[in-house]
Amino acid sequence: MCIQALLSGVLIMLRSVLDKMNKYMQIALDEAFSGMRKNHGGPFGAVITIKNKLIAKSHNQVIKSNDPTAHAEILAIRIASRKLRRFDLSDWEIYSTCEPCPMCLGAIHWAKIKKLIYSCTRKDAANIGFDDKFIYDAIKGTSKKIQVRKKLLDRNLCIKAFKEWQNKEDKVSY
Amino acid sequence: MCIQALLSGVLIMLRSVLDKMNKYMQIALDEAFSGMRKNHGGPFGAVITIKNKLIAKSHNQVIKSNDPTAHAEILAIRIASRKLRRFDLSDWEIYSTCEPCPMCLGAIHWAKIKKLIYSCTRKDAANIGFDDKFIYDAIKGTSKKIQVRKKLLDRNLCIKAFKEWQNKEDKVSY
Repeated sequence: MCIQALLSGVLIMLRSVLDKMNKYMQIALDEAFSGMRKNHGGPFGAVITIKNKLIAKSHNQVIKSNDPTAHAEILAIRIASRKLRRFDLSDWEIYSTCEPCPMCLGAIHWAKIKKLIYSCTRKDAANIGFDDKFIYDAIKGTSKKIQVRKKLLDRNLCIKAFKEWQNKEDKVSY
Repeated sequence: MCIQALLSGVLIMLRSVLDKMNKYMQIALDEAFSGMRKNHGGPFGAVITIKNKLIAKSHNQVIKSNDPTAHAEILAIRIASRKLRRFDLSDWEIYSTCEPCPMCLGAIHWAKIKKLIYSCTRKDAANIGFDDKFIYDAIKGTSKKIQVRKKLLDRNLCIKAFKEWQNKEDKVSY
């Protein structure tokens, strides 16, 4: 009986240690649960921090907003850049409850974010119906089935805008 | 003199034919020029059509909005999906004055758009300072220099949200 009580105590301690999450990942997870339960979108949350301070949190809102780009990471980047009024987020960290898809990974790179902490994997996401392999394949050029047909058109005319940009004296490079 | 006049006439005719653009690419190009001249962002425009009808047009607004995700294609998708209140855009076409970056290509795939008509190439964009090769490399796993350090954390806890999604009876799959 004494051993049982001891074991039970150890188990409770172990669980408390095992369940102790990184505080920002906990906030991202809370977002994921909250968004899913409100039917805003899939079970995904993200948080952005700067110098260990929370700047933005969000969850997937594809269903709520009818916006296929409304992934948690994209929304968190939008909130954070609006808040701090800059598009160079190189001193920021992003927490995501899931490995970002190519769209979000692209956004993280454009934002110049240097640290990505994520939780569930692409494979975990694919297992619950969110498979982004077709996008990886399209970007890698290894798709067996092409979803997006591409056509090149009017390059000789659109290149004029690029030439004007090159000669633009007051341009903001980014 | 007569030959000169004839040649000049032929040249004018040729120019008029050569300068005749696809009408939607023309609108996308007008957006690109307009956004660049207003210092909203780089020289990029995009248009979304459905059954040959204009639904949305936009231009890059990274500088104006401080949002690194505010590329022309992403903004056009957001406008169009908000307008038609749906996130499945499989009957749509997107026109872009430039080959989309991986972030926008990801968005186009998530939106299920089937036809992409673009004008300038990735190489043209790189030549004026908008090089997305580092993102392609990161997604392909061929980067020589890693910009975004990745860390896996708390998967055993975040997976709980995925399990709840699996069992959620009123979920909207997308």
